[in-house]
Amino acid sequence: MNKKKIINDPVYGFVSIPSDLVFDLIQHRYFQRLRYIKQVSLTHLVYPGALHTRFQHALGAMHLMGLALETLKGKDIDISPEEEEAATIAILLHDIGHGPFSHSLEHTLVQGVSHEHISSLIMNELNQMFEGKLTMAIEIFKDKYPKHFLHQLVASQLDTDRMDYLNRDSFFTGVSEGVISFDRIIKMLNVANNGLVVEQKGIYSVEKFLIARRLMYWQVYLHKTVLSAEQMLIKILQRAKELTDKGIDVFSTSSLRHFIKNRLTKDDFISDKNHLQHFIMLDDTDVLATVKMGVLSEDKVLAKLCDRFMNRRLYHVELSNNIPSAEKIEQLRVAAMKLFNVSEEEVHYFVFTQLVENSAYDLGEGNINILMKDGTIQDITTASDLSNLEVLAKKVQKFMIAYPKEIH
Amino acid sequence: MNKKKIINDPVYGFVSIPSDLVFDLIQHRYFQRLRYIKQVSLTHLVYPGALHTRFQHALGAMHLMGLALETLKGKDIDISPEEEEAATIAILLHDIGHGPFSHSLEHTLVQGVSHEHISSLIMNELNQMFEGKLTMAIEIFKDKYPKHFLHQLVASQLDTDRMDYLNRDSFFTGVSEGVISFDRIIKMLNVANNGLVVEQKGIYSVEKFLIARRLMYWQVYLHKTVLSAEQMLIKILQRAKELTDKGIDVFSTSSLRHFIKNRLTKDDFISDKNHLQHFIMLDDTDVLATVKMGVLSEDKVLAKLCDRFMNRRLYHVELSNNIPSAEKIEQLRVAAMKLFNVSEEEVHYFVFTQLVENSAYDLGEGNINILMKDGTIQDITTASDLSNLEVLAKKVQKFMIAYPKEIH
Amino acid sequence: MNKKKIINDPVYGFVSIPSDLVFDLIQHRYFQRLRYIKQVSLTHLVYPGALHTRFQHALGAMHLMGLALETLKGKDIDISPEEEEAATIAILLHDIGHGPFSHSLEHTLVQGVSHEHISSLIMNELNQMFEGKLTMAIEIFKDKYPKHFLHQLVASQLDTDRMDYLNRDSFFTGVSEGVISFDRIIKMLNVANNGLVVEQKGIYSVEKFLIARRLMYWQVYLHKTVLSAEQMLIKILQRAKELTDKGIDVFSTSSLRHFIKNRLTKDDFISDKNHLQHFIMLDDTDVLATVKMGVLSEDKVLAKLCDRFMNRRLYHVELSNNIPSAEKIEQLRVAAMKLFNVSEEEVHYFVFTQLVENSAYDLGEGNINILMKDGTIQDITTASDLSNLEVLAKKVQKFMIAYPKEIH
Amino acid sequence: MNKKKIINDPVYGFVSIPSDLVFDLIQHRYFQRLRYIKQVSLTHLVYPGALHTRFQHALGAMHLMGLALETLKGKDIDISPEEEEAATIAILLHDIGHGPFSHSLEHTLVQGVSHEHISSLIMNELNQMFEGKLTMAIEIFKDKYPKHFLHQLVASQLDTDRMDYLNRDSFFTGVSEGVISFDRIIKMLNVANNGLVVEQKGIYSVEKFLIARRLMYWQVYLHKTVLSAEQMLIKILQRAKELTDKGIDVFSTSSLRHFIKNRLTKDDFISDKNHLQHFIMLDDTDVLATVKMGVLSEDKVLAKLCDRFMNRRLYHVELSNNIPSAEKIEQLRVAAMKLFNVSEEEVHYFVFTQLVENSAYDLGEGNINILMKDGTIQDITTASDLSNLEVLAKKVQKFMIAYPKEIH
Repeated sequence: MNKKKIINDPVYGFVSIPSDLVFDLIQHRYFQRLRYIKQVSLTHLVYPGALHTRFQHALGAMHLMGLALETLKGKDIDISPEEEEAATIAILLHDIGHGPFSHSLEHTLVQGVSHEHISSLIMNELNQMFEGKLTMAIEIFKDKYPKHFLHQLVASQLDTDRMDYLNRDSFFTGVSEGVISFDRIIKMLNVANNGLVVEQKGIYSVEKFLIARRLMYWQVYLHKTVLSAEQMLIKILQRAKELTDKGIDVFSTSSLRHFIKNRLTKDDFISDKNHLQHFIMLDDTDVLATVKMGVLSEDKVLAKLCDRFMNRRLYHVELSNNIPSAEKIEQLRVAAMKLFNVSEEEVHYFVFTQLVENSAYDLGEGNINILMKDGTIQDITTASDLSNLEVLAKKVQKFMIAYPKEIH
Repeated sequence: MNKKKIINDPVYGFVSIPSDLVFDLIQHRYFQRLRYIKQVSLTHLVYPGALHTRFQHALGAMHLMGLALETLKGKDIDISPEEEEAATIAILLHDIGHGPFSHSLEHTLVQGVSHEHISSLIMNELNQMFEGKLTMAIEIFKDKYPKHFLHQLVASQLDTDRMDYLNRDSFFTGVSEGVISFDRIIKMLNVANNGLVVEQKGIYSVEKFLIARRLMYWQVYLHKTVLSAEQMLIKILQRAKELTDKGIDVFSTSSLRHFIKNRLTKDDFISDKNHLQHFIMLDDTDVLATVKMGVLSEDKVLAKLCDRFMNRRLYHVELSNNIPSAEKIEQLRVAAMKLFNVSEEEVHYFVFTQLVENSAYDLGEGNINILMKDGTIQDITTASDLSNLEVLAKKVQKFMIAYPKEIH
Repeated sequence: MNKKKIINDPVYGFVSIPSDLVFDLIQHRYFQRLRYIKQVSLTHLVYPGALHTRFQHALGAMHLMGLALETLKGKDIDISPEEEEAATIAILLHDIGHGPFSHSLEHTLVQGVSHEHISSLIMNELNQMFEGKLTMAIEIFKDKYPKHFLHQLVASQLDTDRMDYLNRDSFFTGVSEGVISFDRIIKMLNVANNGLVVEQKGIYSVEKFLIARRLMYWQVYLHKTVLSAEQMLIKILQRAKELTDKGIDVFSTSSLRHFIKNRLTKDDFISDKNHLQHFIMLDDTDVLATVKMGVLSEDKVLAKLCDRFMNRRLYHVELSNNIPSAEKIEQLRVAAMKLFNVSEEEVHYFVFTQLVENSAYDLGEGNINILMKDGTIQDITTASDLSNLEVLAKKVQKFMIAYPKEIH
Repeated sequence: MNKKKIINDPVYGFVSIPSDLVFDLIQHRYFQRLRYIKQVSLTHLVYPGALHTRFQHALGAMHLMGLALETLKGKDIDISPEEEEAATIAILLHDIGHGPFSHSLEHTLVQGVSHEHISSLIMNELNQMFEGKLTMAIEIFKDKYPKHFLHQLVASQLDTDRMDYLNRDSFFTGVSEGVISFDRIIKMLNVANNGLVVEQKGIYSVEKFLIARRLMYWQVYLHKTVLSAEQMLIKILQRAKELTDKGIDVFSTSSLRHFIKNRLTKDDFISDKNHLQHFIMLDDTDVLATVKMGVLSEDKVLAKLCDRFMNRRLYHVELSNNIPSAEKIEQLRVAAMKLFNVSEEEVHYFVFTQLVENSAYDLGEGNINILMKDGTIQDITTASDLSNLEVLAKKVQKFMIAYPKEIH
């Protein structure tokens, strides 16, 4: 059977599957699951086109990895065929641990267990099934492989993960301003001192990449309405857990019920493989079906949350640079208790606040290094003409308050 | 509240909502439901990008309707503001009757009741809620309004529905060859004898449109793997019905259960409004959650079908110009019975045949008329230089046989 | 010096220069000349964006050649690095013999000497300068190299030349309907019996390619206004020659004057290298400067032609399926003689006819062969479902009559 | 005759001509001349696709003006049909005074007379021909019309001129990073206090616009090789003037000769209309033909400059943040005098320096104002979160030194 398939991708045209092992991993049910997990969760409620999945993103990032490795080899960086396949697999599987609605529910379904951690567990599982063929990929993923730059292609501030998601999210949302010149940036990549660098003439493209990333954050990822939907979904699951704790049955698929019922820790995942098996059954469908049936729940709070969510009567959100005043919050809570006839314990399902923060560039974490024409290496914030690019490294904080519009 | 919203659409950039009434219809839960019904059903299993929904398509078709009406008014065709809004609403709601997985399950969930029929019922319902404001739109939809060309913009072989879906499906699948020059075609539209026509210099664009449509059919809509997945989904629902009939419980959301349990007719829908209310609760989620839980079913046939479906181990499909021989079918059935240990009554869940047919242009149904420079009107098949364009009107038939690969 | 340059190309993003020899050829003044010869001559008078040059086209075709060779090598077709470079050079230089305004003036400046013939002469010249390094490229260009399929990539009905020009012309004119899926077609290429073939599943793409080509012919290349401008330019040069023959001086650059003065044959080019040296100095600028100065000529006919050309007061053109009647022509001629006060000998500068013909596919010349799944090879016209695709092979003839609008 | 033409534009798809008067202006020979003046002069020597013209740009800016006026009218800003046409004409003609090679030769052909000034003269000329119909357009162009915001749409830091040229230059160069979301910016335009403003939610798009502009400057407009070619062309004209002054004949078209021979001032243009008539005959062709013939000149300096220019053997350019040292310059001059056998008076044709400067945003000139949600108006540099966006307003200066590579 020919496993050298080509897959149509609206973003890059075609994505080629480079080897039989990669093909078999893509075919594996653990990976197929990603077909049913949307990349940007609830963003489609604002940008209707944004229905793309972790499956597409993983293939896209793999495609960019191929281009990056091709470029580096063309510049006489030593990369063996085994390393090439391992880096390809590392990026292909980097997000395999994501659960339903990706980041939105990351700390709601399983508190304190990040998706990277679950990715690791799943990769180990796959490594056993594939008889150790994933060992080098896992080393690269965990930054334990000597060629550090391969890890940086998987995880750093200019990795193929970010390049793909900025491109892809901007493509499917239709926010054309997020488009980055991944092809130009990739052609400017090089390796110095075992680290990934961008050649000096690529500076403008990197600046543009950072600005595009910042724009996507405030215009898309942290869009008020998206935040509102996300918080409502979290509230729905919290309520489901609360009810379940009280012994009230909530309709759900069996795997999701497992996580609604149990409070699991990292250690639990390691001590009992059963938890991971349940996790691997989950995707967006389980949560959405639960929400849909929640509309019919006898619990008024759950029913109301689910109904508003499904019919997109989302809470109104205010974002501001200052902490909302205690008076304002109290006023809204009182109004909500009255209008929805709920108790003080329940009103947090209707009125709540949240801290929202983001910086386009994180000084100190997987920095972007520029290889200057004189051979020195500089951080992008100092290499740029735009002398104080470092403002992009400043963490911007905003305070959000959410409540149903009708109580205002 | 400002209802003159602009929505980002990756295909056209921006789509504007033209009026308050249109805004309110879009906000309505009946329309919001379309957010959860994929436009091209299971096509994403071959073209991973094809996750777009009926919601996006309806907005896109509405956008093209706006452009078309603008063009016609610019050519001094008499169209009042009321007619403009009515035509806009007619196209916005033309697909509102689609159920989960659109065409794939159209005749499985509710036999003998087309989505157009349900669209009509829902429009009537909405017309009551909106106090008769949809009356003209419904007349246009049903071709009862005197200005026939308005109906043709909604439903004919060159309507804004087709123009949008070819464009959109080609965009999201990444099959760039399906792209049509909707903007050029629209600019060539005109009205003659109360009917929609394309001006002569648009002939080449119409030809190209028909060729693109043909290509999309064979390359996308009738792709072997898509057909396979579709048939497997149908088989899953058939099995669920069969089991339910026998009194064996199948996990499902309550609204889907309603249609698994009951065999409903057009008349039932009219006599008991409850059926429509259940229908309006359905979307892809209900079906998918049922399939996911089906994996765990005690019924081996259902479990096997669902497991293969979820993990994309789809049946192998052969398409040929000839009817597959009875011997071949029998051989495959025997092999399947043995391998899967199923009875003669059940083997049709594993081995089955289907007739697949398509013509790019249907002579006689909503023909495409060309307004020649000499003022005469000709059908595109006679107006084209490509003297025998009529071959596009020929129905192409193919025969499909599907079975699990391992029995071959 | 690093010669592995990357060139920005709006059509493909980036084009890479694959070797030092190729770099040196591109830098050569013979090749740089192509920067000043527009690919589609006067088409920009209708489609203002169509200012792209033979230079860009040659680089683009070279890029596609690279993709095609990559695909074939991936399918284990034996192609050595030397053959790869030779095929690359062959396509790079295939149009190097084009003169000012490409096809428009091909048989006006030098009658009976095709641009392919001049390309051959220039390649020979270059081969001497580059000490025989172009020998294999020339063999491929002339189809004298044993691997026939390499020639077909340079010159056949599905060569990289056509693929690039359809793409490029459609990109720069903005006639999006001419866009072809070159990437898909290229991925479907293979070699059988030493000949280039397209794999069966690429049939729809080839069909689409032929339809797109047909559309580009009638909508762009043979657009009435383009034909009109082209004929007027030919008439201008004819008049310049006529005046020069009579001893009347016409302003011109020295190299263009060489061709206005002399009637040269193939043999002249071979016997006296000086002619080729003059030819190699020519580009669009020489002709355009001559036309601009012609506006000020004392010869009324020349001045009028040049003035109308520069200010785009082009002749009116009628295209029809029938030969225009002798009466009509005579009427127009009489009217023109009167209005412009010209003699019977001169009136052909104002009123003239021309035969325009085209077929989208030429049976018998570099046919497109399809490799069927059963291993047989069929011509596209018989392999296609669109049973009578052969209509595309029919030569369509139209008759043109051109005259200044004001005499009608 | 139908003057409601549609023109294909690769950037926007289609551009419509809104009125008969606009159609007649486009047809006028003064405007047709712009077909032969490249928008970005010699940029095509680095980015081969960049052959687009002032003609296309003027139409494109007119298209954006149409969209902007549509948006403002939709927000109930009072704009009469007459004002609409006047603003359209003002932008259509804003660049009509550009001479050959646009900015490159702006102060070489006619010193001290800007293209805006010549645009004014030509508009006045046209206004006479069109019997005063351009009066309001001229007032808007000169900012003498009461509705100041109309002038700002024509000339300010966020005018339709800039929006089109950034878009268009980025499209044709293939530098995709310069793409701006003109459609989003335009939809965010509004009017406050008679001035043009951008609504607050458009801030990110404006930031991105400024960053894109900065990138285009350093990556395209001020690209080293482009600067080199530009300076060489200026040197060629200087030499032609020098020789002509000395009585040595230089081949040229008659209109270009007029400007080589004469040193003209603003006053000359006003006192003698003949100068403007000569100017209006000029386009890129005149200069290029002169350069081509210069290759054959008996003057060694001119011949050498022209030969290198035509065959793209451009001078090497170094750009640095510091003034190049006098020693270095002297060394290069000495080497050049020796190698090319030229005198001290002539060596400036071979070795020269230049100051290059740019700021992405000019504080104080046609500022970009943001309409905040609280109703106040702020300059973009203070309105942005990117607190010190004002760095974009800093003038960046670089020093260039150019010389033939072989003397290094």
